[in-house]
Amino acid sequence: MVGVREQLTMRIAFQGEPGAYSEMAIYEHLGEGHQVVPCETFDAVFSCVADEECDYGFIPVENSVAGSIHRNYDLLLQNPLVVTGEHYLRISHCLIGIPGTSLTEIRRVISHPQALAQCERYLRSMGDEVHSEAVYDTAGSVKIMRELGDCTVAAIASRRAADIYGMAVIAENIADYPDNITRFQIIARSPVQSGADAKTSIVFSLNNRPGELYRAMSVFALRDIDLTKIESRPLRDKPWEYCFYIDFVGAVGEEKVDRALTNLEEFTTFLRVLGSYPRHRV
Amino acid sequence: MVGVREQLTMRIAFQGEPGAYSEMAIYEHLGEGHQVVPCETFDAVFSCVADEECDYGFIPVENSVAGSIHRNYDLLLQNPLVVTGEHYLRISHCLIGIPGTSLTEIRRVISHPQALAQCERYLRSMGDEVHSEAVYDTAGSVKIMRELGDCTVAAIASRRAADIYGMAVIAENIADYPDNITRFQIIARSPVQSGADAKTSIVFSLNNRPGELYRAMSVFALRDIDLTKIESRPLRDKPWEYCFYIDFVGAVGEEKVDRALTNLEEFTTFLRVLGSYPRHRV
Repeated sequence: MVGVREQLTMRIAFQGEPGAYSEMAIYEHLGEGHQVVPCETFDAVFSCVADEECDYGFIPVENSVAGSIHRNYDLLLQNPLVVTGEHYLRISHCLIGIPGTSLTEIRRVISHPQALAQCERYLRSMGDEVHSEAVYDTAGSVKIMRELGDCTVAAIASRRAADIYGMAVIAENIADYPDNITRFQIIARSPVQSGADAKTSIVFSLNNRPGELYRAMSVFALRDIDLTKIESRPLRDKPWEYCFYIDFVGAVGEEKVDRALTNLEEFTTFLRVLGSYPRHRV
Repeated sequence: MVGVREQLTMRIAFQGEPGAYSEMAIYEHLGEGHQVVPCETFDAVFSCVADEECDYGFIPVENSVAGSIHRNYDLLLQNPLVVTGEHYLRISHCLIGIPGTSLTEIRRVISHPQALAQCERYLRSMGDEVHSEAVYDTAGSVKIMRELGDCTVAAIASRRAADIYGMAVIAENIADYPDNITRFQIIARSPVQSGADAKTSIVFSLNNRPGELYRAMSVFALRDIDLTKIESRPLRDKPWEYCFYIDFVGAVGEEKVDRALTNLEEFTTFLRVLGSYPRHRV
C-alpha cells in the first residue's frame, strides 16, 4: 500500500550529477522530501517530463554574468510543456580537493567547461604548472576526483557537492565575477494555480516593421501590466525577423491578462504562452 | 620617413592568440593590411584602446546560441570608449591535429572551455577514453598542440588557426548547434562618421513603474525609428531595477534621432549612447 507521504512525493528531473547547482535549486525551492532524477543533458530533462517519468524539471534559463541560455528557450518551444515556476539561485564556486590537500599541491583542476570559464582568472593565478580539464558536470567532477584519490587533482563545484562526496573545500567564491545568479524555470506537463503574486512568460514573433514591437507592448502598457523581462532574438532561418521573450506580472485567467493576450495576437505572426507561475522573490 | 601606407595602418586589439575568431572578424571586416594586437583578456583589449596603444578593439557582444555577453557590456560602461562598428562572424569549430593524425588515435582534446562546451555532444561521441582539457584560447590550443608534437592530442579552433600553425583539419563543423554566429562590436576613443545605413547602441535605466519601458520606447515608435535589439537586464546592486540595451536604425546627428534621445532623457535615470556606426549587413 502506498502511503500518503509517497503519494505526495514528486519526481523532479535536473541536468547533472547529485550536488549540481540545478539540484540545489530544487532543494531550495521545494525542500528535501522529493525524489530528484539526475539527467545527462537538458534534452533528457525535457524528455523525462514529457514522457511522464518525472513530474517536473528544473532548467537554467538565464545567468547574471553569461546572459540568457537560448538553448533552453529553444527546447521550451520544441516540447509541449509549460512553465510552472521560477527560482533564483546564487552560484558560488568552490575549489574542492581530497581532505588534507593544500593549494600548492594541486596540478590539475577538473570541472564543467562553463565553471572553468567563470573561474578563469583564479585558475591562471594558480600558475602555469596547473592544468584545467573539462568534464561534463560540476558535481560530477567532485565524484571523479574522489575516485581518482589523487591529492594533485582538485574540482570546481558547489559546497554541497563537496559535502555529498565527503571532500574538502580548499577555497570559496573563486569565480571572477562574484555576483553570479542563475534563474531556473520549472517545467511540467500541466499548468499550475499561480496565486496572487504571479508572473507569465511568453514568446512571440512580429513582422519586421518599425513600431511593431511598440504596438505589441501597448497591449501591456495600456492595461498597466508590468514587464519584468524583455529580450529580442533574431530568428535563425529568417535573418530579418525576430522573436521576443517577455515576462510580465500577472497570470492567464486574470481578465486584463487574457484581454492583453487576445489583443497581442492581432500583431503577432506567432505567439506561445509558456506558462503562468508564482513569482519567486529573492 | 613614415610612408603613407604605414600612416594609414591601424593597430587593432583582440582577445586571444593569432588565429582567434576575433582576429578573423578583424580580417573579414577590414582586410589584411593592419597590425593586429593579441591581448590575454577582454579587460586588456579595452585598456589597449583607452591607453592609445591601439586604435580599435574588436569585442564579441552576443552569440546566437549562448546569448549576450554581459561582461563586455559592463566593460563598455566602465570605459570611456565608443562603439564605431559591428561585425557578424559565422563560427565554425574544427577538430585539428598534427598532419597525418587519424581520429581514432586521439586521446586528449584541448581548447577554450566555451568551445569545449559548444562541442560537448561531439566530444562525448569520441568515447570515454578521450579527455578534454581547457586552455584559455581556441587558437592558442592549436599552438600548444603543435609544440607538444603528440599525435594523440587534438585541438578545437577555426580552420584559419589550423592553417596558421600548419596543422591538419580532422573534422569540420563539430559544434552541437551549427547555426553559431557571433556579433562583434568595434570600440575606439572617438566616434566615426556612420554614413547613411547606420545603427546606434544605447544603454539606459528606468524607474521600476509599470509602463515606463513603453513610454521610453514611444520616443522611437512615434518617430518611426526601427529597433534591432532590445534586452532588459536586472541591475546588480538594485534588484528591482533594470537596465536596457537597445540598438536602433539611425545615427546621432540625424534630427529625429537627436530628438528621440532628448525625449528619452525625460524618462531615464541613466542614459549612455555607446555609439553610432555603419550597419553590417550579413
